[in-house]
Amino acid sequence: MNNFTFNIPTDIRFGRGQVECLPEELSKYGKRVLLVYGGGSIKKTGLYDTIKELLSDFEIYELNGIEPNPKLTSVEAGASVCKEKKVDVILAVGGGSVIDASKHIACASCYDGDAWDLVLDRSLVKKALPIAVVLTICATGSEMNSGAVITNEKTKEKLEINTPLLYPRLSVCDPTYLFTLPKKQTAAGAVDTLSHVMEQYFQPNDEAYITDELSEAVMRTVVKYAKVAYEVPTDYEARSNLMWASTLGLNHLLTVGKGGAWSVHPIEHVVSAFYDITHAVGLAILTPAWMESALSDETAPRFARFAREVFHVSEKDDMKAAVLGIEKVKAFNKSLDMPAKFSEVGIADERFEEMAKEAVRTSGIAKRSYVKMDEACVYEILEKCK
Amino acid sequence: MNNFTFNIPTDIRFGRGQVECLPEELSKYGKRVLLVYGGGSIKKTGLYDTIKELLSDFEIYELNGIEPNPKLTSVEAGASVCKEKKVDVILAVGGGSVIDASKHIACASCYDGDAWDLVLDRSLVKKALPIAVVLTICATGSEMNSGAVITNEKTKEKLEINTPLLYPRLSVCDPTYLFTLPKKQTAAGAVDTLSHVMEQYFQPNDEAYITDELSEAVMRTVVKYAKVAYEVPTDYEARSNLMWASTLGLNHLLTVGKGGAWSVHPIEHVVSAFYDITHAVGLAILTPAWMESALSDETAPRFARFAREVFHVSEKDDMKAAVLGIEKVKAFNKSLDMPAKFSEVGIADERFEEMAKEAVRTSGIAKRSYVKMDEACVYEILEKCK
Repeated sequence: MNNFTFNIPTDIRFGRGQVECLPEELSKYGKRVLLVYGGGSIKKTGLYDTIKELLSDFEIYELNGIEPNPKLTSVEAGASVCKEKKVDVILAVGGGSVIDASKHIACASCYDGDAWDLVLDRSLVKKALPIAVVLTICATGSEMNSGAVITNEKTKEKLEINTPLLYPRLSVCDPTYLFTLPKKQTAAGAVDTLSHVMEQYFQPNDEAYITDELSEAVMRTVVKYAKVAYEVPTDYEARSNLMWASTLGLNHLLTVGKGGAWSVHPIEHVVSAFYDITHAVGLAILTPAWMESALSDETAPRFARFAREVFHVSEKDDMKAAVLGIEKVKAFNKSLDMPAKFSEVGIADERFEEMAKEAVRTSGIAKRSYVKMDEACVYEILEKCK
Repeated sequence: MNNFTFNIPTDIRFGRGQVECLPEELSKYGKRVLLVYGGGSIKKTGLYDTIKELLSDFEIYELNGIEPNPKLTSVEAGASVCKEKKVDVILAVGGGSVIDASKHIACASCYDGDAWDLVLDRSLVKKALPIAVVLTICATGSEMNSGAVITNEKTKEKLEINTPLLYPRLSVCDPTYLFTLPKKQTAAGAVDTLSHVMEQYFQPNDEAYITDELSEAVMRTVVKYAKVAYEVPTDYEARSNLMWASTLGLNHLLTVGKGGAWSVHPIEHVVSAFYDITHAVGLAILTPAWMESALSDETAPRFARFAREVFHVSEKDDMKAAVLGIEKVKAFNKSLDMPAKFSEVGIADERFEEMAKEAVRTSGIAKRSYVKMDEACVYEILEKCK
């Protein structure tokens, strides 16, 4: 087991009605709040009104319209409000995109140069505004981790910024807020969560037995409840289990003792930076192709373990079980009506070469991932997805 | 799933050589340190010298000889040193007893009245000195939780104090420190960890599926590695997995969404308060007897799930599987040479009635545990253990 540190300062308030804690908790940081949210679904559901009422004696500035794959321009807009209005705390109400944008705003507000500098050189992040979250889409785990993925529209780069200063101080996770999620987002959240855990599970080091066991526990939970929530949006048991699974799926717990680089996300980040497709759609298409590419005599035992533990495959032969596992992932995605090929989302092959280069350039897949991948290998994976 | 909060401020430094961080981390609180440890094994292993050398420019006061089932008198002695010498931070080097004593010292040092008051009324704890830990026995999880169990020799009470102020700020968990553990302590640590997880697993609420999955993952880890570490004390893979299992076993992760009261610990606390036996020995004796007592048509499915998931029992009939699970727990304890009956540790039945009363009086077992237990029920369990 590799050495590790584990230190998460986020205060999670999980369950029905936990939003009530906002006035008391936000007061700790001050009265000037930047409220960040997305396309306005929180207005339809009433959550916007609830929050405004709870925070009636706060001074609230708003930044709305945060898009999926949040853009640098949104970050710049938010940071300029924070600087001008001397905001004390950022309240992100939404899912991963809103939280990620808020994290970047939090540090860009405390930095005099160009906000993109902080993504290119994390050591420049010296200070950040405190962030609180009200989670309305469960997927990225951003509510309990210190990472944020931001897209620079000009350079077509989609990169991560990550420093302990960006942990949310507080995250309200109320599963009832998921009751009104569009089906597509429920599906995307489940696929994203499963992918996060797989990325951490398929790593060079396999001495961290307990971490693998915990990962399998979380993946089984996603597989058990994804379809339930997809079909019955108001099933509290399903929603609450999926919500906590997505948080634990990327709060460092499932990485400890392992380490290495992720495999599929770096490729997907390039795809969605080039084509602006939904992140989880990219993952659903790429994951089985990556599995087929990574499967070999050497990796078959791990893929077989995955198939048996996560999808209850009973096949004894490792290679056969591994192949069945890949089929199970495809079937899981299909059960949630996720696309399986690039052609379904309007992506052709004309930029595959460029994308393969970019995936290798911007990540550790060539050197530190489970199965090392060069540009040719990534190109082949993209070809499989056509 | 019940509502919950999750917020652990402890900074875990896990792995070989992590003790090196002590000077930098302790400096954050000041230079006057109370070093708390047990019977002196850290002097034999060289850890004492390592720490003294690392902290050569600190002012160190020592409190040694902390006993298993730590006593109020030790706490009083420690608190008086802290008050007199204006100690800035407490460094607990040891296992659960040393950490628990240190926690009680940490708050007693900031309180003017009698230290036992704080155990009887937690609301009196308003302040506590910061605590850092170097873990040398893995069992109680005290390195990453806010609880401490203290014995009052005069009143024969063994009670818990628990408040967020008592989370260690830092815990160094280096599995190599376990290489020199006496076999008995290795066995005791594994039995204790398994019991902690079982206490949280057997609860009235079973909607927290993910928490149950995670609990099973941790229990399987304990079952897989306990005997390995018992036989090969220097097996790093076994030691590291068991060490992290014991921390996760009681850091709140396996309770979230569940709730209720524990079943076996309250009885064991009375037994070891009356007879001063090793806590895990009491657990090893009591747990199978409690399982037999709690098993019924109603509880058989949960006990069967435990048997199948933790001990790989393949029996399809729930009641039969449940019974096999109890046998597996007995066999697990036996494989670690743990006593199975009170007679093996010199406990006869003359105080069973008094002990049963005390267990019910000092805990929630009559009202909030998995299967409610009155005095007659506890008496019967004690009788089974003779």
